[in-house]
Amino acid sequence: MSHTAELIAVGTELLLGNICNTDAQMISQALSQLGINVFYHTVVGDNPERAKAAVEIAKKRADIIITTGGLGPTCDDLTKQVLAESFGKQLVFHEESAQRIRSYFETYLPHRTMTENNLQQAMLPEGCTVLDNDWGTAPGCTFVSDGVRVIMLPGPPRECRAMVEHRVIPLLKSLSDGVICSRTLKLFGIGESNMESQLHEQMLAMQNPTLAPYAKEGECELRITAKASTEEEAQSMLDPVEQQLRQQFGDLIYGVDIPNLETCVSQLLREQGLTLGTAESCTGGLAAKRMTDLPGASQVFKGGVVCYTNEVKHSVLGVRQETLDQYGAVSRETAAELARGACRVLGSDVGISMTGVAGPDPDEGKPVGLVYCGIARGDQVWVKETRLGQARDRIRNSAVLTAFDLVRRLLTGLPVE
Amino acid sequence: MSHTAELIAVGTELLLGNICNTDAQMISQALSQLGINVFYHTVVGDNPERAKAAVEIAKKRADIIITTGGLGPTCDDLTKQVLAESFGKQLVFHEESAQRIRSYFETYLPHRTMTENNLQQAMLPEGCTVLDNDWGTAPGCTFVSDGVRVIMLPGPPRECRAMVEHRVIPLLKSLSDGVICSRTLKLFGIGESNMESQLHEQMLAMQNPTLAPYAKEGECELRITAKASTEEEAQSMLDPVEQQLRQQFGDLIYGVDIPNLETCVSQLLREQGLTLGTAESCTGGLAAKRMTDLPGASQVFKGGVVCYTNEVKHSVLGVRQETLDQYGAVSRETAAELARGACRVLGSDVGISMTGVAGPDPDEGKPVGLVYCGIARGDQVWVKETRLGQARDRIRNSAVLTAFDLVRRLLTGLPVE
Repeated sequence: MSHTAELIAVGTELLLGNICNTDAQMISQALSQLGINVFYHTVVGDNPERAKAAVEIAKKRADIIITTGGLGPTCDDLTKQVLAESFGKQLVFHEESAQRIRSYFETYLPHRTMTENNLQQAMLPEGCTVLDNDWGTAPGCTFVSDGVRVIMLPGPPRECRAMVEHRVIPLLKSLSDGVICSRTLKLFGIGESNMESQLHEQMLAMQNPTLAPYAKEGECELRITAKASTEEEAQSMLDPVEQQLRQQFGDLIYGVDIPNLETCVSQLLREQGLTLGTAESCTGGLAAKRMTDLPGASQVFKGGVVCYTNEVKHSVLGVRQETLDQYGAVSRETAAELARGACRVLGSDVGISMTGVAGPDPDEGKPVGLVYCGIARGDQVWVKETRLGQARDRIRNSAVLTAFDLVRRLLTGLPVE
Repeated sequence: MSHTAELIAVGTELLLGNICNTDAQMISQALSQLGINVFYHTVVGDNPERAKAAVEIAKKRADIIITTGGLGPTCDDLTKQVLAESFGKQLVFHEESAQRIRSYFETYLPHRTMTENNLQQAMLPEGCTVLDNDWGTAPGCTFVSDGVRVIMLPGPPRECRAMVEHRVIPLLKSLSDGVICSRTLKLFGIGESNMESQLHEQMLAMQNPTLAPYAKEGECELRITAKASTEEEAQSMLDPVEQQLRQQFGDLIYGVDIPNLETCVSQLLREQGLTLGTAESCTGGLAAKRMTDLPGASQVFKGGVVCYTNEVKHSVLGVRQETLDQYGAVSRETAAELARGACRVLGSDVGISMTGVAGPDPDEGKPVGLVYCGIARGDQVWVKETRLGQARDRIRNSAVLTAFDLVRRLLTGLPVE
């Protein structure tokens, strides 16, 4: 049986534009993966009457209602009260949840006194199943009433995402009569529109599995989703599609079900017992930041130098003054010396460098978007020249990805230039 | 007279979670600035029946309906058809808009042939006012019917933002009988809930000007908004509120109408002709990245060293081995030597350092969230010890802000410890 879900976000801060409803996007993606239709998103403020009106409308057009927000201690548990009322239920005190809230405060916020209103969060609709929140204080909950499954989740994106992954997806999977499996191929080095136009006919022709392309900050994704009666059957439906895409896109595909390029690089370094160092000019620390976003980075990442001035390029990373004078900071030659300098100064096995014009103005007579990325290992060094558009953020992001991709290519034996 | 607006976004890609409804946030901010209430956002797919149902509901609860999306040539002008139908209007061919579409193609997309369906975009509701789109092909439009003002805008965020700024805000301002001005005070060093609880009574009591608190990634904002008949009058209403908040929050306020703390730091350095260098352990390059997010950073930012290993702390930044052995990398002593090392190695006037445990696991027997931030200038060095919660991203972000705030405090003569 096919389900229809409606998302209701509760929060005046959404209506004032202080925050964006990213929860809706995240939950929609998850539901789409599960084959559950979403026909409407609604956002309503911290106002009981209007929230109740939104719920009454949603009840008529969906058999799954997922709410986000309005569970915290400062909003008088608006969402739970409204939903309980709308489905004719009482709120009752849930001792186990109260205990979890108390111990959350003791463990994570020892310097803050827990005020009594925090225990309001343990008031839950009678007969509901509690969805434990291991990532914050407000528990979620779910119940079925009038043929509608109601799921209430906390609003803060970090908590909401974890709750969807660990509580909601397992719950909704168990409601489905089949198994839905998906596999995401990750690509770097191809534009989204190029990828889409190559796949357009294929995508239209496919029913099960389906194929969906996504673009994410300079990287591309291809998600294959199959529905079948068993996990094995679904997986075996994904295989031929993956194979075909691998033939089509070859080494542009850097991984499957992996969050991003830095994770791929980090895994390769770990597997091969190597370390990385970075020398960054135009990217200003972004490559180092991305590598250290990953917990446990210190095993593979030695460190980096952000050489925003020529002085630092020379004095810290040992780029020769003649090179800077003759070719400029944005050059193949400087990129090569920076990559070598990273290895030498930071004591890493592999060094990468990024130097370019991030804009908004041209520099050294060189155009905005021109970037050189270098990679050094032992005595060898390679440099890739690229043109990365016009927008400062995008140029910096693409430069970092280009450098990471050089590491991936080097460590997997692909040509780097 | 006070208006109530409702936003309806049309697009299946929103319901699938392929994109986020950032248009709604942007428009909500604009409306909030104009003093127009927004009670609901709705998102609906490319389905005429469901879109029409959403419009029928919105008509009953708002006197301004703003739609985004569904105007392009590939979606059969869904939005215009639905709105025209819902308000009993015909779509008629608008020759001037057709001409604009033709010339847009000639100017911006000379390599693409304009297909006939592009001219579908020139079919507009009879009697509407066209909102010319100088940023894309689909024109927007507006009309008033049944006491409701309808405004239709293209969905792509870049186009939508420009249309709101240049077409919608002037239109809605002309409907308003006064002028709305706002001023945003930026704070660092106080939690959102603490700020809110201090202001709660005040905010409730205020009608005009109003006061709204916001929290943004570790920083806080207080926005004062006044409505008056002239700009001068509105500004003079903001002054006493600003003054009172300055008395209340003192040096926690670091600026007015300034985007973030790094901009404040950058301005202070520029004014005083000073340069900054960074030494980052747990923050892994984030401070350098944030400083270089600002165009023209090279005037005040020399560079940084990401010393993710003790080896790099010692060899590149000159932290003494004894210090590392005796106190550990996460210590007051190491933070001090790192900040001095940044000045010395990078040749900067001011050096800042961040070293701590970003998690997820404790390190050196020290708890997750413990961070030391150092600042050095000449022979002087100060270190601040802080506890910054549990989540890796938040710890890193707060550590960077804490270090930036040390610079602000030092350069404005405030106590740094």
